[in-house]
Amino acid sequence: MSLPLLQLALDHTDLDAALSTAQQLHQQVDIIEAGTILCFSAGIEAVRRLRQQHPGKTLVADFKVADAGATLARMAFDAGANWMTVICAAPLATFATALEVAREYQGDIQIELFGHWTLDDARQWRSLGLTQAIYHRGRDAQASGQQWSQQDLDAMQALSDMGFALSITGGITPAELPQFRNIDVKAFIAGRALSDSVTGVETASQFHQAIANIWGTP
Amino acid sequence: MSLPLLQLALDHTDLDAALSTAQQLHQQVDIIEAGTILCFSAGIEAVRRLRQQHPGKTLVADFKVADAGATLARMAFDAGANWMTVICAAPLATFATALEVAREYQGDIQIELFGHWTLDDARQWRSLGLTQAIYHRGRDAQASGQQWSQQDLDAMQALSDMGFALSITGGITPAELPQFRNIDVKAFIAGRALSDSVTGVETASQFHQAIANIWGTP
Repeated sequence: MSLPLLQLALDHTDLDAALSTAQQLHQQVDIIEAGTILCFSAGIEAVRRLRQQHPGKTLVADFKVADAGATLARMAFDAGANWMTVICAAPLATFATALEVAREYQGDIQIELFGHWTLDDARQWRSLGLTQAIYHRGRDAQASGQQWSQQDLDAMQALSDMGFALSITGGITPAELPQFRNIDVKAFIAGRALSDSVTGVETASQFHQAIANIWGTP
Repeated sequence: MSLPLLQLALDHTDLDAALSTAQQLHQQVDIIEAGTILCFSAGIEAVRRLRQQHPGKTLVADFKVADAGATLARMAFDAGANWMTVICAAPLATFATALEVAREYQGDIQIELFGHWTLDDARQWRSLGLTQAIYHRGRDAQASGQQWSQQDLDAMQALSDMGFALSITGGITPAELPQFRNIDVKAFIAGRALSDSVTGVETASQFHQAIANIWGTP
């Protein structure tokens, strides 16, 4: 199991502010994400400009696609994304068509888990060839006080056992990482914690330190 | 029960093409929608330009929000949207915060139904004060041959009985309208059928004729 990566989610409403945060943090993170808020604010230009500014970095278009999988995948990958997210509520046909386009570009599709989904769904996603999922404690759920529960951890473990690499997100701090010790974590995704212009670089360093402590070889 | 309205969904990847279609069709439709594809392509500018071009028309931002309800609602309503969509997989907290912002602007939130949802969910949405839902036969589901089923019609009837006004979408043609006769239909949403520069206006007129025949007073 390789070390979990660190992903910077850019959820700015202003593209220049997002580009400036990416410029400040890019050496401290493994993956850069054009968040949903940024994509709806600036359009596909957000993905294009991030790709120009960081030609070698893994770049995610967090579209949370529910329909029109092929069209949106082509838009995202043409603009330079490596991965695009599709929401779990999308029909299987949307996953299949998005994945087909992703593969044309040597890209990948990440399943964004929200609301109701079942392990049966997960088996069908695996059958399509999907291998990445994002486990999410939503912003609004966090704000209303929802914590990571044993149920969350059990669901992550089940997905991990099924062969999914998981990216985990939702107000995560370095201190929270030990509870994910047994999960196949692809990446931890942080937004606001990393975007702070004063403490962002230091927070990124704390994430890497915690990751090395927990997942590094002894 | 008032007559179902006709909604033009603009799912262009090019904003100028979308504005041109809206210009051609606006007198034939009741509602204009900035579709998800258009919003990801051009960003919030799509909503802003459509509002400028059609100051008096009901305008929908089809964001299919899953998280960050307040931020995205403020973005949509500030740009001139009247309604914004939130996907059914979103947490209740997302619906609540989006609806709170919508009400500041005398706007509304539409629940976009995709994937798994239950009548229990629907009751919770009603309790929050939501009254509009969009029943969807997805593009990709259509392309893979999925038809409107008795199960769809039963679910629509149950939502309608619960007090939801429904907008119905997914490759609908005027000939298909009679099967929705007993549903409280807020609007029929059509995109590609109306966007054709040669036949669009005529198709809109066929929709209105079918609506008058089915729902009009005898």
